Amino acid sequence: MIEDNVVYVGNKPVMNYVLAVVTQFNAGAKEVTIKARGRAISRAVDVTEVTKHRFLTGATVKDIKIGTEKMPSAGGETNISIIEIVLNLD
Amino acid sequence: MIEDNVVYVGNKPVMNYVLAVVTQFNAGAKEVTIKARGRAISRAVDVTEVTKHRFLTGATVKDIKIGTEKMPSAGGETNISIIEIVLNLD
Repeated sequence: MIEDNVVYVGNKPVMNYVLAVVTQFNAGAKEVTIKARGRAISRAVDVTEVTKHRFLTGATVKDIKIGTEKMPSAGGETNISIIEIVLNLD
Repeated sequence: MIEDNVVYVGNKPVMNYVLAVVTQFNAGAKEVTIKARGRAISRAVDVTEVTKHRFLTGATVKDIKIGTEKMPSAGGETNISIIEIVLNLD
C-alpha cells in the first residue's frame, strides 16, 4: 500500500518495502515516512536500516514516533503498537 | 537480563519486561533504556506503550534510536536491527 511519501510495512519480505521507499525518493520525495503496526514494527526498522546502509547512504532518520492504536477484535477492541519512522534525503 | 537502568527485551511475555521497567523506576531511576534486537523490537515498543499507558502515566519517551549490529551466524556474520527507547520519569 503506497500513498504520498508513506510506505506501510506489512508481512511481505523486507526488500519489497525497501524498493517502495527507494522508488519514492527517486520520484523526488525529500522525506518518506515508514509506518507499521504490531509485529511488523521490527520489519519497519529493518526496512529503514537496509535502505540507509545499502541503497541511500545519504538518508538519515529524522524522527521516530511510537504510539498505540485501538483495533477492532473479537468481542471488542484491542490495543496495538505503531511506529512511524521519517527518513530524510537532502 | 537487567543492569543499571537498562532492560533488554527478549522473547518472554511483555508484562515481564514492563515489570522490570517499573521496578527500576520505583527503585529511583529517572531514566530507563529499553533495548531489543530483531523480532523483539516490536515487543520493546509494546513494553514502552504498556508502561506509559497502564503503569506510569507520567513517563515520556525521551529518545528512540535504531541501528544495525553484526551477529555471528552460520558461515559468517549477519546484520540485525536494534532499537533503544529511553523512557523518562520526572
